[in-house]
Amino acid sequence: MKIAIYGYGNLGRGVELAIRQNPDTELFGVFTRRPPASVAPVFPGTRVFPAADVTHYKDDIDVLIICGGSATDLPGMTPALAESFNVIDSFDTHADIPKHFATVDAAARKGGHVAVISVGWDPGMFSLNRLYANAILPEGKDYTFWGKGVSQGHSDAIRRIEGVLDARQYTIPVQSALDSVRAGENPELTTREKHTRLCYVVAAEDADKARIEREIVTMPKYFSDYDTTVHFISQEELDRDHKGIPHGGFVIRTGSTGADGANRHVIEYSLKLDSNPEFTACVLVAFARAAYRMASRGDSGCKTVFDVAPVDLSAKSREQVIAEML
Amino acid sequence: MKIAIYGYGNLGRGVELAIRQNPDTELFGVFTRRPPASVAPVFPGTRVFPAADVTHYKDDIDVLIICGGSATDLPGMTPALAESFNVIDSFDTHADIPKHFATVDAAARKGGHVAVISVGWDPGMFSLNRLYANAILPEGKDYTFWGKGVSQGHSDAIRRIEGVLDARQYTIPVQSALDSVRAGENPELTTREKHTRLCYVVAAEDADKARIEREIVTMPKYFSDYDTTVHFISQEELDRDHKGIPHGGFVIRTGSTGADGANRHVIEYSLKLDSNPEFTACVLVAFARAAYRMASRGDSGCKTVFDVAPVDLSAKSREQVIAEML
Repeated sequence: MKIAIYGYGNLGRGVELAIRQNPDTELFGVFTRRPPASVAPVFPGTRVFPAADVTHYKDDIDVLIICGGSATDLPGMTPALAESFNVIDSFDTHADIPKHFATVDAAARKGGHVAVISVGWDPGMFSLNRLYANAILPEGKDYTFWGKGVSQGHSDAIRRIEGVLDARQYTIPVQSALDSVRAGENPELTTREKHTRLCYVVAAEDADKARIEREIVTMPKYFSDYDTTVHFISQEELDRDHKGIPHGGFVIRTGSTGADGANRHVIEYSLKLDSNPEFTACVLVAFARAAYRMASRGDSGCKTVFDVAPVDLSAKSREQVIAEML
Repeated sequence: MKIAIYGYGNLGRGVELAIRQNPDTELFGVFTRRPPASVAPVFPGTRVFPAADVTHYKDDIDVLIICGGSATDLPGMTPALAESFNVIDSFDTHADIPKHFATVDAAARKGGHVAVISVGWDPGMFSLNRLYANAILPEGKDYTFWGKGVSQGHSDAIRRIEGVLDARQYTIPVQSALDSVRAGENPELTTREKHTRLCYVVAAEDADKARIEREIVTMPKYFSDYDTTVHFISQEELDRDHKGIPHGGFVIRTGSTGADGANRHVIEYSLKLDSNPEFTACVLVAFARAAYRMASRGDSGCKTVFDVAPVDLSAKSREQVIAEML
């Protein structure tokens, strides 16, 4: 199965790495909107092509993994490419997924291809766990917690404040809230009660740190609804201690059964990830395998993780997974 | 969707209860090998039929949930019934699943029905989580822990010892082993290092308790490979404190990514269940829905949880699950 990467940032690099771990997949190459010569792939053997040429290679590529951003790249890219390729994307603007689905579906049907959108861990594996848990326990309550992990959007928001040179923001679930959910107490939790925000900020030498801290903790939408802690550190400390992109989280559903609802059940799925983009890339490659298989069987149109039979994700045969994992 | 229950013990009762929680399902009735008049269902309106008559109702039943035991009931029952019905079973003798699959597949194809075998939580939800986690992290290590929960088989084994009137055995995961796995230490764990066994025993008044305890802790296969604790209690205490059938467990996969494998990831799925049979029954009903939908689309043959697209498990429409859960 020949996979190509369209868009080459952290996520694209993660896909390049993940393909090495899946012996039934092969990297055709990377497509980039930057000058190809300016792009240094992880492995020297990886070929880099201009994005504009991608359709020249439509017969050489089984699945194209689109590694663009959800805000401005994917809404146009995924439908455009789904006409010529089986594609996977990680579109993650939850509220806009139905609209994205519709435009991608029309394009994929027109081209006779399979497009799987919103693949990753949230949306993605977390969504799957919400669906399974809801189907099993119809009477219950859902909780999703994120972290401990780096939020790129919140880090960027801090960097836009005057006097800030660099910043890294961690989202942290509140342990007592998690404990209460796991104990089956079905708490009603406010935004503030679920997560705290921890910020490491590099300020310019002459900057007013009190003002920067005030601007962060009062920033609407991003920080004002949370208990936020700000630490000022040096650029050296930031580079040394906060270079990684860890993330993770918890999806929990609690529910009850029995004639009087007396029996309580807790279903929990959690991820603890050293590298958010590398893990997301691993999920993308597994779903690329499924897209290829679905397309090979004559299926077409837009799909989500909900439409994919789990057996299609595995490099092993159906007989093998039944014997080894069931 | 009309569901019938074939076999009426704890699991059958759980299915009767679960159908009440799923408004798109309706209970046709219970089939039993005992005299129907001797069976008291949970709800007085539930009809009870003799098992021998089940094929008379083949046009009235969309899915038959077979609630028999894996040792002697299901190997014969599921293939026999799959010729006339869409069926679900919870066959859980892991080593014999490929053989069971083959006989059920032949029968289901002959009758043009869908049969989903080995549905529940292990095999079932735990199997699904092993498959997803392996597909995402090809380079890693799997761990499954069970408990804290009641093992019916181990409780029965204790009851067969001379001088034992009643017993309840709990399987308990070793916390330090769980912690080591979660920390990504990839430990190699022996049977003894993963689980302990805790036994509550009611002994006859004149019984030799020292002998009973010795017979338990040295019993091959069941106890000799574990650290086992035995407490002697009264029948009143057993009935008061150990009447429930709780269970649960953990499926964990740890793996690494990156050019040098330096980034570690932990995927964990866990269940904490007050009632093992009631939760298993909830899983059976969700997969009964999927079996009905698959059969309605013209599919047939033996399936496992790996073959079922998650969307088919939900009472909600595809549009709804995309909008609400993705």
